[in-house]
Amino acid sequence: MKKKISLLGATGSIGLQTLEVLAAHPDQFELVALSAGRNINKVREIANSHKPPLISVMEKADAETLQKEFPSIRFLHGSDGLEEVAANTGADVLLNSVIGSVGLKPTLAAIRQGITIAIANKETLVAAGEIVMAEAKRYGVSILPVDSEHSAIFQALNGENPKSITRLVITASGGSFRDLTRDQLADVTLKQALAHPNWSMGNKLTIDSATMFNKGLEVIEAHHLFNLPYDQIDTLLHKESIIHSMVEFDDTSVMAQLGSPDMRVPIQYALSYPERIPMKNPQQLRLEQIGTLHFETLDLNRYKALALAYEAGRTGGTLPTAMNAANEMAVGQFMQGNIQFVQIDELVERVMEQHHTIHNPDLETIMETDILTRKIVHSMIK
Amino acid sequence: MKKKISLLGATGSIGLQTLEVLAAHPDQFELVALSAGRNINKVREIANSHKPPLISVMEKADAETLQKEFPSIRFLHGSDGLEEVAANTGADVLLNSVIGSVGLKPTLAAIRQGITIAIANKETLVAAGEIVMAEAKRYGVSILPVDSEHSAIFQALNGENPKSITRLVITASGGSFRDLTRDQLADVTLKQALAHPNWSMGNKLTIDSATMFNKGLEVIEAHHLFNLPYDQIDTLLHKESIIHSMVEFDDTSVMAQLGSPDMRVPIQYALSYPERIPMKNPQQLRLEQIGTLHFETLDLNRYKALALAYEAGRTGGTLPTAMNAANEMAVGQFMQGNIQFVQIDELVERVMEQHHTIHNPDLETIMETDILTRKIVHSMIK
Repeated sequence: MKKKISLLGATGSIGLQTLEVLAAHPDQFELVALSAGRNINKVREIANSHKPPLISVMEKADAETLQKEFPSIRFLHGSDGLEEVAANTGADVLLNSVIGSVGLKPTLAAIRQGITIAIANKETLVAAGEIVMAEAKRYGVSILPVDSEHSAIFQALNGENPKSITRLVITASGGSFRDLTRDQLADVTLKQALAHPNWSMGNKLTIDSATMFNKGLEVIEAHHLFNLPYDQIDTLLHKESIIHSMVEFDDTSVMAQLGSPDMRVPIQYALSYPERIPMKNPQQLRLEQIGTLHFETLDLNRYKALALAYEAGRTGGTLPTAMNAANEMAVGQFMQGNIQFVQIDELVERVMEQHHTIHNPDLETIMETDILTRKIVHSMIK
Repeated sequence: MKKKISLLGATGSIGLQTLEVLAAHPDQFELVALSAGRNINKVREIANSHKPPLISVMEKADAETLQKEFPSIRFLHGSDGLEEVAANTGADVLLNSVIGSVGLKPTLAAIRQGITIAIANKETLVAAGEIVMAEAKRYGVSILPVDSEHSAIFQALNGENPKSITRLVITASGGSFRDLTRDQLADVTLKQALAHPNWSMGNKLTIDSATMFNKGLEVIEAHHLFNLPYDQIDTLLHKESIIHSMVEFDDTSVMAQLGSPDMRVPIQYALSYPERIPMKNPQQLRLEQIGTLHFETLDLNRYKALALAYEAGRTGGTLPTAMNAANEMAVGQFMQGNIQFVQIDELVERVMEQHHTIHNPDLETIMETDILTRKIVHSMIK
């Protein structure tokens, strides 16, 4: 029996690599639906090559245009279309690779249909981790990580007793600006920020890697996925991105997953879990060719974003939601050329200082916090 | 319920560290018997501190002397005593840390009593791997590795499907002479050979590490323990001994176990398996303090012993038995000052060239091969 896969965010970097994995294993997987945003030419390519029965796009006009071009595919649009793709297609697994907290509602809809979630959309867990994990528990649904770091931890926990965990160590490449001091960041450009040294990822993720908000979001994501306090979640600068993360146990053993930086590996693992299946065009890891692996402490003064994320995570409530929304807005403004790179974490810090945290928020409060925070950032910039 | 542990080779390096692990967890383990060789003062210390009900030593006279000193302990001697300790004490787990193929018969005796084997005695698996593993399968007995490398692989296989394994990567520190060329080995002394850079081990093992026969024996041991062909067992020079070994899977993921070089970790894991238990006086791994890990190919011309072991393993039959016996003899002769360091692998090579391999040998043939090979090495030296 083939696993039925539904895919949110098909035209993004993770989405396209997911389509590659699905195409490499037609005997294992069946693509039942996908969503995309406004990149309609890319949707056309995917419609031709993968022929999914259902596609949802952002705009009504795009959906109507595409419907005429591809009469055998059903087209939907907007947030209703997104939820339809997420939850009403009989999928076994939803791979959610949308960017930002917009992924939250379709994730919850899928959980309520008992669909396994393969989550690449870390903002969903950052914004509403407690609610998502509680719903997953309630419906007996697994949340499988797609981020390479969390996939590494998940693999390292295979066959282990979670009670023996003493520490997670999340590795960080350091992003595009790891060799610059904080002072040197003042003049960096968007183009420089988008040049990640190791990983091929989407723009938001690449900017988040450069600010180190990405690692901060991952720390919060790990807290929710693996149910561990922040004192047991460490980060480690490892510029080669070969050890993808580690778990330390109470007997001092450390289990790690290693590999070439290739996002297809964690994507495929989330889809094939609990089995592994062979990788097409494998990039075998040969440590003798790499020669040397380096490890350093991440300086929380240099990487203010990481310190902010730990603070948000430890405080909990609506603070991570606000931090995440502020960061999404700030990254958008940086990419539009409205603010400097160093203003991203400064803006987020100001938002966090002003934020009045509400503890144990319900979903409505989280959505309101998200919207309100975006407005606040907007007003700060204008 | 405490696990009952029987220990062969109590006065050696692994034996003493096993006693440390047992003493650290009196609520988990009960020492029911142990064996030792001729180090009677060490036996006295252990008898006082650990008070096992049964001890077997090598010599009858020693057993009689000790019996008078410790009337509450039962003393045995010789190979009968060794087998009694191994197989007739109601132990749940036998930790076999004797050095050399002398460990073979008591291991088989314990297997036939359904006792789980924690094996630090790699020569047993090298000399008679097929017979030992077949007997273990027949009696439904687990053979748990104690070598740090095999323990790492065993831990990396936790929860995995063996069918997905593509490669084992056994790491090697390089031993005492890793920075010397083969030509520079001509003048090295016994004292230099016994100075291992990372691990605290017994003398035989330290010499084997310097010649790289240790890594060769480990390759053959891994072949038997994990039932993989030699083409799927690689070695890798990793001088920091932090990654203790790795398993590569068909999705290109590599799972590894890391830690400070501390033999108590794999010893304790073999005893506590399938659970982990906290380590007393833990040596936590902090990669940010180590900073850099190095990896290089092991040169089979420089490390002739490794090439010989692969050849013996691939040929199979009595050739690994002969190789092992020749190496045990040669190491003994080097430690007595009768031969030079470089003569160790040269002697083994000559024995292997002259050996007429018998395929699918029974236990008797293996024992005869072992004895005969020792005589041949003896005659070569005199």
